[in-house]
Order: sequence, then structure tokens, then C-alpha cells
Amino acid sequence: MSGSYDPRTFQAPTFHDATPAFAAGSDTPRAYLERCLAVIAQREPVVQAFTIVNQDGARAAADESTRRWAAGRPLSPIDGMPIGIKDLLETKDMPTEMGCEAYRGNFPRRDNAAVSALRRAGAVVMGKTVTAELGGAHPGATTNPFDPARTPGGSSSGSAAAVGAGMVPATVGSQVGGSIIRPAAFCGNYALKPTQGGINRGERQTTSMSTHGIHAGSIEDVWVTSMEIVRHAGGDPGRRGLMGPYTTPGAVKPGRLIVLETEGWPDVDDPTRGAFAAVLEGLEKAGVTLLRRGDHAWIEALERAVANGRSLCGGITAWENHWGHRNLVDVAGDKVSARARATLEKAEAMTLDDYRTLLADRDAAQQRHATLAPLADACIMLSCPGPAPLWPGDRPGQPLAPRPTGDFVFNAPSSMLFAPAFTMPLMGVGGMPVGVQLMGQQHEDARITAMARWVMGAVAPVVA
Amino acid sequence: MSGSYDPRTFQAPTFHDATPAFAAGSDTPRAYLERCLAVIAQREPVVQAFTIVNQDGARAAADESTRRWAAGRPLSPIDGMPIGIKDLLETKDMPTEMGCEAYRGNFPRRDNAAVSALRRAGAVVMGKTVTAELGGAHPGATTNPFDPARTPGGSSSGSAAAVGAGMVPATVGSQVGGSIIRPAAFCGNYALKPTQGGINRGERQTTSMSTHGIHAGSIEDVWVTSMEIVRHAGGDPGRRGLMGPYTTPGAVKPGRLIVLETEGWPDVDDPTRGAFAAVLEGLEKAGVTLLRRGDHAWIEALERAVANGRSLCGGITAWENHWGHRNLVDVAGDKVSARARATLEKAEAMTLDDYRTLLADRDAAQQRHATLAPLADACIMLSCPGPAPLWPGDRPGQPLAPRPTGDFVFNAPSSMLFAPAFTMPLMGVGGMPVGVQLMGQQHEDARITAMARWVMGAVAPVVA
Repeated sequence: MSGSYDPRTFQAPTFHDATPAFAAGSDTPRAYLERCLAVIAQREPVVQAFTIVNQDGARAAADESTRRWAAGRPLSPIDGMPIGIKDLLETKDMPTEMGCEAYRGNFPRRDNAAVSALRRAGAVVMGKTVTAELGGAHPGATTNPFDPARTPGGSSSGSAAAVGAGMVPATVGSQVGGSIIRPAAFCGNYALKPTQGGINRGERQTTSMSTHGIHAGSIEDVWVTSMEIVRHAGGDPGRRGLMGPYTTPGAVKPGRLIVLETEGWPDVDDPTRGAFAAVLEGLEKAGVTLLRRGDHAWIEALERAVANGRSLCGGITAWENHWGHRNLVDVAGDKVSARARATLEKAEAMTLDDYRTLLADRDAAQQRHATLAPLADACIMLSCPGPAPLWPGDRPGQPLAPRPTGDFVFNAPSSMLFAPAFTMPLMGVGGMPVGVQLMGQQHEDARITAMARWVMGAVAPVVA
Repeated sequence: MSGSYDPRTFQAPTFHDATPAFAAGSDTPRAYLERCLAVIAQREPVVQAFTIVNQDGARAAADESTRRWAAGRPLSPIDGMPIGIKDLLETKDMPTEMGCEAYRGNFPRRDNAAVSALRRAGAVVMGKTVTAELGGAHPGATTNPFDPARTPGGSSSGSAAAVGAGMVPATVGSQVGGSIIRPAAFCGNYALKPTQGGINRGERQTTSMSTHGIHAGSIEDVWVTSMEIVRHAGGDPGRRGLMGPYTTPGAVKPGRLIVLETEGWPDVDDPTRGAFAAVLEGLEKAGVTLLRRGDHAWIEALERAVANGRSLCGGITAWENHWGHRNLVDVAGDKVSARARATLEKAEAMTLDDYRTLLADRDAAQQRHATLAPLADACIMLSCPGPAPLWPGDRPGQPLAPRPTGDFVFNAPSSMLFAPAFTMPLMGVGGMPVGVQLMGQQHEDARITAMARWVMGAVAPVVA
């Protein structure tokens, strides 16, 4: 292991604490942006987090924000905040290529609902961040900011790496299996994967368990950015959307937390197990009661209900994507990866009843999760099975590596449960970040955010 | 009144009864298509149901179908069925212009999920049917096939008119407020607006109460076409989709029906009231018990819960469309109608909490509806307040007519209740069609279809 990450000293950029200086006139959004652009100029050649940086557009937006702050009339607490947008979401001023050759040059000149909301709040939409192809498994060019031989995770690869590399204080990511929480955990981010439907996905509604979420260098920027999007764009159509205050909830100490193993536990490496044990010990010392699968039959029942989470999430999403991906392959099959084509073939072998059975299994697991509400304040678990794996790239003639952006085994539960998950950069293992997450009941996004604040104050980061 | 419609003699084209001749070799899908094209050639100059008819593509597809039937290997019971697609849905071989100047020439070369499914079932996708602009209120060029001075209804204007004019046996429509059932009722169609999420809307998921549905000349073609779509494309992501047999359910006599007034009742004209009373009398004579708002407090409670249905549906949908329509107006405002711009302005004056309040009202109304399940087999009501109104077009300098495609007051209930609705061409008023609909509990699509079959056999059409 050769990573450069130390959770005790690392600090990604933050925005919420920069705005007092904007108001006082000692700093400006334009100057903030220029600092971001300087980091990008320095690190982008290796990290490759962005597909495009719209420097002119960002500078113009930052100048407008500078004028608003100078006049004492910022549009919101995130007025002037540079933000990167995962390149699955449409943006009116930049192409949307979805990490897929078939979409090279695609430029619909529309803003996704969240992007539109960010602009209304005054945020500086500065670029598009690399996504794994179509939000799936086939990786883009981004490298891990703490070791370029390793994956940044995916599919929100660039969103996580841009924050981890100090390029921007926040980015928009999206998750269908583990595409926010895992890369955030591999790159030292804070991130919230909201309750299903919490943030309006705009044109991206064609799968039933994807969510948009925020990666950032601080809990405050994660929360306030999420809420400013929801203020203007709401949640998904028909959903109430992320609920809570427009300011970051204050720290709340959990009384009891359930330690979830999930199907990932057997594969966790020893240093990561040791570090996680130390985090749990820290929680107990701070007075939190921990419950495990042996402590209550309902916890055991939830563990069993999520024990095939990867397969369930993969099956549901593959089926939901099959008509759209068939379109794409029919039109431009040579510009779609072999990984995506293999997933399409599996989906086309499924029947409608196979899909309905997976939906029923998912419903049942959600019921199991709901039963735990009176037992504990939240669940706690690893955000990933260990540090980001090495990724040397595909080798011609060799079988395709199944999970080049890492394993989503610790992320399938919150996705299938439609539950909010907040990952915290609490551990360093071999010089690489490894996240720990809190998972709440549906619509308890604000509550787990408040508990994450408490955990970060009460438990020291662990190095292993 | 000067319409040419008589429900006792009118018969739109049917497909389900044509296929035995395909199997026997005495008719072919190509010949069936040519008969449709001949009607289009004759009637389209006045009716204007289509934005485009892809004659070459349709003939090629019909020839392929002809070969499959000749070989005894049709792909499905609708193999070879000519079908029109509402021009809101994307089609890979025809433009998708959504009745909006801003989308003139839009040609994404993708198939909507339902279109893709229809092709897999062997259907002949023969053209795009006119929609009111963006599925809203601003009308297209289509006229009513029974009186060209009248609206065909909307927004599925062309889908309804094409069936009513005898051009095709079936079309795909979509409804967010009343856009399937009302035009079908104005044009002498059968149509099913399924349970919310019943048919996969593909890329069109950005409103919470739109559904895709089928217009046809027979109950059999409505049902089987709907199910063949669902077989391949399923319901909306995460929904189980339309449930039931792949063949048309046999007739089932309802024991009790609830006669719903809705907020539209005070505005129904006398001849339509009289015709509807005669239909109800026919049902009673056939042994069906009818319940009304005075008969049970829960029925009264549902009437009250849907009494502001138009306003509720309008508000929810306007808010859900606001970010997308704002995009469109910012890019091409002069190519968006004044009607759509006025709706956008209203939506932008709403807050997130206004929207959430409407969602809560909708949830509460759905609970009221669910309580009625043990009281009766279904609800019965008018599908529209009377015959299609005259539509002379907008007059320069005059205020915009509020509902040029007719009033959706009898359609808001099934939309907001997420309930299936089946309209039947049971009445002729002044020579124009007026539909009567059955509305079931969520997921009882097959049950109301079975009851519609019984009603059409047991109750004579009424002329007033």
C-alpha cells in the first residue's frame, strides 16, 4: 500500500465557512473559483476527474455571484459555490456524454432538474465529472486522488475524485447500486445518498432505485447543497422529497446503533476489520450502545433480507435499463462496452415475472428494515470492503474484471431499502481512505446527518 | 348539433378478429395495412390525425409480419397490427415533435419503451398521432371525425381521432389529467387508462400521474395490445405493471356500481344527463344495484375528496413540469404557446410546500377511494361532460379559451386516484359520441375490462 491519505490531517475544500468572508468583502466567489481552478490545473492531468471544465462560464457565474455578495443579496448560502456535475445529468452549456462512446458529442442544451435548481441558488456549475459508462461498471479515465494506480470508485468516479483531490468543495453524484457512497468512501468524501426520490432526478427517472446525491468536503456543504436543490426542484415526481431544515442539523448523539454486517463482511480485509472495530470501540466509549445480528431476531431478519443485495439490485436495474440499452446497442452497438452489452444480454433473458419477483423481494426487505425503527437510531456499517482496489485497466484477450470500480456489496442495502446513507471519512487503511456509513429509516436523512455530525466530533479517525 | 355518429351502428376497425384470416391465408397484414392507408388517404385531409405516416416503414413491417403469419410463426396476437403512436413518445424512425414548435425536427432516433415493446410483438408502427402541445391544453390541427367543427379532445387528439375515423384499429395515447379518456369519449373509442404505472412510460417519467394507454375499436384490442406492451416493457420502473391474463378477460357482471357525480355533474347538459340516466336504467334492469352519494357516507367522502380534482391535478402537474418547461422557454420561448407559458408562470409562483400539500391531498383521496372496495365492484360515471365542444380556433386579440380540447373534469378523479378507467362508446348525443367509463380500484384493470365487456353486451347504446 502506498497511498498518501491520512484521515487525521486530510481536509477537502469547504464552502460553508468561506461565505462570511464574501459577506465581509475579504474574499470573493471569483477568487474562490480561481483557487479551485488552480488545483484543477495542477492535479487534473493525473486525476482526470472532469470530462470538461467550463472555465469561461464558471468565471462569468462567479463574477455575478461576487456582485450579489458585494451587494448583500446572495441568492442562497451556496451562492458562488463551484460544483461539478456527474456527466449523466444534462447541462445546457456542456455536452452530456455519459461515459459512453455512443453519446460522444451529445449536447441536448437542457439542464437536469438539480442543475437548474443549483443555478437558481447561484451555484457555479463549473464542469462535468467523469462517470463510469452509463452509470454502470465500465470505468472512465479517473484515478484515485490518493494513489493513481487505484480506482476512485464508480460510477460517480469524477465526482468523488474531484472532491478528494481538492478541486471543488462539492459535486453531484448518483447511485443506483453503490455509485455515490462507494467512490466517496474511496476518496475521503462526505456524501449523502438520500432517501429514494429525495432529490429530483429530472430526466433520469427510468430506474426505480437511483438517487442523486451530494459529495463534499464537509457535512455542512453536503446538507445545505442538497436542501437548496430540493427547495427549487423538489424530489422525484410524486415524492415529497428530502425533508428537513435548510440549515445543517446540529449534532445529535445516537443512543443505539445497529452494526450491520451485510453480505460483504466475509470479504473484508483484516486491517479494515481492525480499523472498523476501533471506530466501534470509540462509539461505545462515547456511550453508544451497539446491537448486532445476534442481539435481536429482527436484526438477523434484515441481514438475511439484504444477503443477496448485489444480485437483487443488479437484476432490477438491468431489467429496467433493457429497453433503453437495446435501443442504444441497435443504433451504435460498437460504441457500447462489452460490459454493458453483457448486462443487456442477461436482462433480456429475464421475464417480466422475474423482475416482479425481485420487486416483491425488495418490498419485503423494506418491511424488515422498517421493523428496526424502534430498536435503534440508525444502522452503522462499512461504506466499502476496504481501500480502493488497484485498477490496471482491461487487458486485451483477458476476461473482463467483474468490478473494476470496486465492490458495491456495502451499498446495495441502502439502495434496495430506499434508505438514506451518509458516509464519513473516518478511516485510513494503508494510506487510503475507507468510509463508514450511517443508514437511517426512509425520510430520516436529516436525522442521520445530525448523527454523522456527532460521530465526527466524538470519535477520532482511525489509521490502520 | 350536426354530427354523424350513431352508437348503434358505428364500428371502428378491429384487429383481433382479423387474425384468423391471416392464419388461414385469406387475408394478410399487408392487405390490412393497405385498407388502413386507404382510409387515411380519404379522411386525413380533414381529420388531420397524424403528424407523419411512415408508409414505407409500415409496408416493410407489414410484409415481415405477413411472412411470419404465412409461416405460422406470428410473434404475438398483435403481430401485423397497424398502430399509431402519440407524438409525445420517442420513435427511432420518425421525429418526435410533441406538438410544440420548439421541438420541430426533433429526432432522437430512440424508441420509447412501449414503442420498442410493440415492435417486439410484431405490431406495425405506422405513424405519429397529433398531440396537444407538450400534452397540455394548446390544441393541434386534428378535428373530430364526426364533425370537423368540433375538437377531437386532447391531448391524445390524433390517437382518438385516428381510431374514430377508421384509420387504424389501435393507437397509443397518454393521460395526465384526462388526455386518454376524454378524447376517446369524444371520438367513439374504447380506451383503457391503466392503473398508475401500468405501462412503462419509458423516457416520459417526469410527472407523477401520467399514464400511457390504448385507444381502440374494440375491448379486445385495447386489452391485448396493453398486455403485449407490458409483456416486453413492463410497468413504470419499480411498479409491478398492468396485471392480468394475456387474453381478454371474459365478461363479468358487476353486482353493485357506484355512480360518481364528481365536480363535473352541475355542468352536464340535459341531453347527456338524459342519455346517462337511460344507461343507468339499462344497468338496473339487467340486475345491477346502483349506489350514489346519498347512499353511504364513504361515497360522499370520496365525492368530496375529488371535488377539486381539476385544480389538484393541474397544480401537481404544472409544478412537476416547471423545471423542464423553464428550460424550454429559456431556450426557445417564442416557440412555446402562450397557454404553456401561462401555466409555467403559475407553477413558478408555487412553493415546494404548496406542491407537497397537493400530494398529501391526493394521498388522502386515494385512501378514500380504497375504502369503497368492499362496497361495490367499480364506479361508473360519464367520461366527458357532453359531446365534444365546437372549436373555432384562437382569435387574435381575444383572451385564450381555457379548455379548447374540452373539459377534463370527469377524468381528474381516475388520474388523481391512480385508478384504472375504461371508457365505452355507449351514447350518442346530437350525433356526437359521448363515453361512459368504469373506474376500478388500483390494479383492477382486468376486472373493469371484464365488466366493460359485460356492460357492452347487456346495455343497449343510447341515442339522445
